[in-house]
Amino acid sequence: MKEIQHYIREINDFPKKGVVYKDISPLLGNIEAMRLAVDKLIANLPHQNIDKVVGIESRGFFLATLLADRLNAGFVPIRKPGKLPYKTYQQKYDLEYGHDQLEIHQDAIQMGEKVLIHDDVLATGGTAEAAVKLVNRFDAAIVQLNFIIEIPFLNGREKIKKQQVFVLQD
Amino acid sequence: MKEIQHYIREINDFPKKGVVYKDISPLLGNIEAMRLAVDKLIANLPHQNIDKVVGIESRGFFLATLLADRLNAGFVPIRKPGKLPYKTYQQKYDLEYGHDQLEIHQDAIQMGEKVLIHDDVLATGGTAEAAVKLVNRFDAAIVQLNFIIEIPFLNGREKIKKQQVFVLQD
Repeated sequence: MKEIQHYIREINDFPKKGVVYKDISPLLGNIEAMRLAVDKLIANLPHQNIDKVVGIESRGFFLATLLADRLNAGFVPIRKPGKLPYKTYQQKYDLEYGHDQLEIHQDAIQMGEKVLIHDDVLATGGTAEAAVKLVNRFDAAIVQLNFIIEIPFLNGREKIKKQQVFVLQD
Repeated sequence: MKEIQHYIREINDFPKKGVVYKDISPLLGNIEAMRLAVDKLIANLPHQNIDKVVGIESRGFFLATLLADRLNAGFVPIRKPGKLPYKTYQQKYDLEYGHDQLEIHQDAIQMGEKVLIHDDVLATGGTAEAAVKLVNRFDAAIVQLNFIIEIPFLNGREKIKKQQVFVLQD
């Protein structure tokens, strides 16, 4: 089995000129690589007593459901505005220009539950910070935020520095 | 264990007045229910010799990765325009007003592979038909399209009548 980074493809100038995009498609397309990623994420949790795995729209969904399955936990999506049909909490976050918003269903997490938050990439940390704020609307405990990839120069960890963070590709 | 339909919540007037939206959030939030759904989808395949599970953006992603895991298959996302960073095939499809488009990476499926296509809901069949056309750009075999829910009066099966189709909640 090759290393995880073998299955992450760099695409120049996507989504715009000057950006090097980290494409996890080769990882997703190879079940052994995908399982290796999930196993390593699981192995680096402080404990496996997790009630809900929260995946951030939409590339965070890919491994979040697998993590939920391995951890015997429920899966909860955090989504862009207007996608979740039931009552939601909303959280704005800043983009380079303007802002966007994330939402979570108000009945998605129960009091006292232990929550793992997953996304594919930790970049500026804007969505991760918004996800933390959304989960903190519940009387629940965030055990960890984990990611496949980090873009270190964007300094996203600064925005979630009170949280435990694990990145697969360090 | 209750039946699958116990975990599907009906939301009136979403996303617009007069529509009864089928919300699978309660299913996703309960790992036993999610596994029951996956097990039933697997049990109703004609065979388990599947190379790639294709999930349609974005609610199709939730169970498609779990299906891929159970079937020892790779996972391939079909996405909305501008999301996939590498070279793509594109397929337009009609909406009630206007049209939209789906894309798949050109290297996502290899010659001769056996493909399962999954989405959460079979409604008008527009996205399902577009997904079939995209997979048919490859020299591959579509084993089945499967869904959690069908909205029968929208007659989506008509658009994919040459395909084998299985719906969990019949």
